[in-house]
Amino acid sequence: MTQIHYPALDIPRPYGLFIADIRDRLDAKTALGLLEWRPDWCAAQFRFSNDHLDLGLPDLDFAAAAAAGIKTVVVGGAPFGGRLPPEWIAALAEALRAGLNVASGLHDRLHDNELLRKLAAEHGGQLFDIRGSRGLTLPVATGRRRRGKRVLTVGLDCAIGKKFTALMLERQMIARGINATFRASGQTGILISGGGIAIDSVVADFIAGAAELLSPDNVPDHWDVIEGQGSLFHPAYAGVSLGLLHGSQPDAIILCHEAARMHVDGYPDFPLVDIQTGIAQHLELARLTNPDVRCAGISLQLSQLPKADHAAALAAMEDRTGLPCVDPAITGTDRLIDFLLADSGSQRG
Amino acid sequence: MTQIHYPALDIPRPYGLFIADIRDRLDAKTALGLLEWRPDWCAAQFRFSNDHLDLGLPDLDFAAAAAAGIKTVVVGGAPFGGRLPPEWIAALAEALRAGLNVASGLHDRLHDNELLRKLAAEHGGQLFDIRGSRGLTLPVATGRRRRGKRVLTVGLDCAIGKKFTALMLERQMIARGINATFRASGQTGILISGGGIAIDSVVADFIAGAAELLSPDNVPDHWDVIEGQGSLFHPAYAGVSLGLLHGSQPDAIILCHEAARMHVDGYPDFPLVDIQTGIAQHLELARLTNPDVRCAGISLQLSQLPKADHAAALAAMEDRTGLPCVDPAITGTDRLIDFLLADSGSQRG
Repeated sequence: MTQIHYPALDIPRPYGLFIADIRDRLDAKTALGLLEWRPDWCAAQFRFSNDHLDLGLPDLDFAAAAAAGIKTVVVGGAPFGGRLPPEWIAALAEALRAGLNVASGLHDRLHDNELLRKLAAEHGGQLFDIRGSRGLTLPVATGRRRRGKRVLTVGLDCAIGKKFTALMLERQMIARGINATFRASGQTGILISGGGIAIDSVVADFIAGAAELLSPDNVPDHWDVIEGQGSLFHPAYAGVSLGLLHGSQPDAIILCHEAARMHVDGYPDFPLVDIQTGIAQHLELARLTNPDVRCAGISLQLSQLPKADHAAALAAMEDRTGLPCVDPAITGTDRLIDFLLADSGSQRG
Repeated sequence: MTQIHYPALDIPRPYGLFIADIRDRLDAKTALGLLEWRPDWCAAQFRFSNDHLDLGLPDLDFAAAAAAGIKTVVVGGAPFGGRLPPEWIAALAEALRAGLNVASGLHDRLHDNELLRKLAAEHGGQLFDIRGSRGLTLPVATGRRRRGKRVLTVGLDCAIGKKFTALMLERQMIARGINATFRASGQTGILISGGGIAIDSVVADFIAGAAELLSPDNVPDHWDVIEGQGSLFHPAYAGVSLGLLHGSQPDAIILCHEAARMHVDGYPDFPLVDIQTGIAQHLELARLTNPDVRCAGISLQLSQLPKADHAAALAAMEDRTGLPCVDPAITGTDRLIDFLLADSGSQRG
């Protein structure tokens, strides 16, 4: 009965991942996300030189990629602010000339670039802008409670596991026979799941309304697993996070954290809040649209810690919070799912 | 030294206010705001019939208005969601045919309407879209502390006096010789002051960045008086309010309330929070970008109460909060200004 009220994406595959001049893995979130969750869809990488980030895919030029049957060049990263650098535009123009499609999740829209539009028309290529409302007229949020259950991943910062945690939750819930759907709120999640709304790119008045659209009414035992965005504690993006929190009206939140992260990434003057404050402030604000909201656990990225310390870090976090704590990439999310199921009996269907 | 980094507006005057089929004063915020703060600019009203809201201005048709020297038809209200109804478009087309310009603060842009664009070109009229980024490339917020002082009006709901309070503060601060600038964050404030950014209409990732742009670095004794938007407690618009709060990094907030308002306007399932919770939650969230933020008082709309109860209502609110409480339309804002000046001595210049 899952109704999708927003347009699905249908981007021809396989993909070649456009790395361009990216060097840092943190700047290639979209490429790495696709490669992790949809490895079968990724057949090549396009880099400006061998000095740039290597995903371990074949390095092809655009002509060779087209000859090998690759259909779409997917921009694999997002420069700060979502801008499209001129040298990327020049390269994507070459991709279109080679007969490929181009997909991008940047704020700077491919469709707003005259050269790319012209080349796409001339060479029969398609341009896919993942961000934006994609032609949809977004509603003002109503605040009306919706049927079905919802869990939202939230975080003390950006790039801290919100998408990964939600995708793993969906995968493991479905494996256990639970009726669950991942709801993408960002460009990488949309590319991975083939649908969703990039909440950070809608007009500000419609953030919560877009979030309401993203997780529509459903059957009582269905779980929407909603990908979080930004952080309430981020000096640039907290508005996005709050609108998504309100519009999602989650029955449960999962707080994402990274064991070694001390301050907001790129903002050294903004130390991360402690985990208890993080939970309390999320719940306080979330109660506006769902007074029954609970925190169902912590998703803690351990990759920065020595392996020998992993179990102790998880146990310490469980002691501090009284909540299940997992690293989805290492332990999976079963303990979160157990908690969600045990805790949701009394909630509205 | 006030630097304006965003484009100023230069809309030909005088204005005719476009009321169309609006009946309720609450739906004509832009017209009423202009009439209140810039009466000299408003020379006519355009209504579909005499049954519709009467501002007390001459009722002219567009041809008579053009003959009388009126230059621009200003859309005086915003239908829910900021959409432009077809019958309004038809009327605005007639205005363009009569040789007038058209200005609108709706989310639906005049420039996106092919008919209006065509008629403007044919008849030499100009279209002004107040909302949107107006060609500006918005930055991601940095969180960097800026020089100069800032006061932001916030509210427990929309349409609760945030703009009025800020305009009165600016007027009365300037009258006292204080270096102060009103910073408009919404379409009506922009029309009144001739500049600003409609924060609710920017792409969500840039809310706080736009707010940073709106109140740039200034001399130490300068006050930006920033118009608030929405409410942290509004199920649709809280994201806008939080981004504006963070980007404004206010030294002081003024909390706006209406004595008789019991729930969020149009959302009967959302009772207003009590005033202490409202203050505390604003301050908690505002501390992210300005740890020294204070609440400098309450702006209480008394118009719904009998006149005999006004003084008692203000006194009761002062007792409850320990803060100065005014109705700017009745008492002025001097008590708020006194508090701001007394309280700001220790703050950074």
